Amino acid sequence: MEVILGISNRHVHLTEDDYHILFGDEELGVVKELVQPGQFSSDKKVSIKTEKRTIDNVRVLGPLRSYTQVEISKTDSFSLGINPPVRNSGDLDGAEIVTIVGPNGEVSKPCCIIANRHLHISPKQRETFDLVGVEKVKVKINSEKTTIFEDVFIKEDPNFTLEVHLDTDDGNGSLAKTGDMVEIIRY
Amino acid sequence: MEVILGISNRHVHLTEDDYHILFGDEELGVVKELVQPGQFSSDKKVSIKTEKRTIDNVRVLGPLRSYTQVEISKTDSFSLGINPPVRNSGDLDGAEIVTIVGPNGEVSKPCCIIANRHLHISPKQRETFDLVGVEKVKVKINSEKTTIFEDVFIKEDPNFTLEVHLDTDDGNGSLAKTGDMVEIIRY
Repeated sequence: MEVILGISNRHVHLTEDDYHILFGDEELGVVKELVQPGQFSSDKKVSIKTEKRTIDNVRVLGPLRSYTQVEISKTDSFSLGINPPVRNSGDLDGAEIVTIVGPNGEVSKPCCIIANRHLHISPKQRETFDLVGVEKVKVKINSEKTTIFEDVFIKEDPNFTLEVHLDTDDGNGSLAKTGDMVEIIRY
Repeated sequence: MEVILGISNRHVHLTEDDYHILFGDEELGVVKELVQPGQFSSDKKVSIKTEKRTIDNVRVLGPLRSYTQVEISKTDSFSLGINPPVRNSGDLDGAEIVTIVGPNGEVSKPCCIIANRHLHISPKQRETFDLVGVEKVKVKINSEKTTIFEDVFIKEDPNFTLEVHLDTDDGNGSLAKTGDMVEIIRY
């Protein structure tokens, strides 16, 4: 079973309230539609600040959500001097506190995680590929640095398009890039 | 079979000639002995410069060698705007040109690679672990982001201590760190 790959660079999801603190009354514009229907790369960027360092030009993804979440790589976490937990999106249990800086204001809250590797899938595709009741799969990248990634969590939603998401550490380590076709392996 | 892991951050090996261009008559001092006998982290740092960007504070490893080589991660390569090949140490076929900047001078040459994943082993250990005639192995990291790294090349030398080397992309993606015990798997 082959699936398209998306490499997620560090990015931010925002609630409506936090968005307005950071950007005032500006509209959240679409720069590029993402593979998952309705999701988009926006025209807004923020800085992520800790006591140790600031990373600029971090993209805000749209649309606005019910939670504010900063997703970074382990490499970023060393740079920022923090130790965020590995979590599914929306699970901010134990998330690290960071300050999100926009042109209009700042938001500091425990919202920083390293996102779990995951597979987006619709219920219908899950049946087709015999993955009902399966929590996670493995993903194999064939390259000069061939790698099998375990702990790839299945995220099911009727609107999802079949796609694997890895972060930049995993993508760069295995020499994989967005748009590559990768192999799904059952446990 | 379990082996100790070393994560290699970006670093530089230098010939005696290039060392003197970069550092003049200064002595190459030892800051820390590495696991491989005779190898050490030195007291010297350089900058790695391309047209796009400069990365400062890149450690020179000792002792001096018969070749000058800059080893970086894929993540570094995006930052520097270059596309170095994945190579065993000492194989500079197709290496990218970078400029190494020291306090005394600069050296520009095709010397930049992404190092292959590799296992240091002595001939005796290779026999003990039944790896004679085997070119490469797999390495499994058990973590919240469990990963099996293939294409781990065997490097044999009578002086070697048993140790796996991965770069920071692989280490950070799999949440592994120097000193972890990792599992060797045969193909």
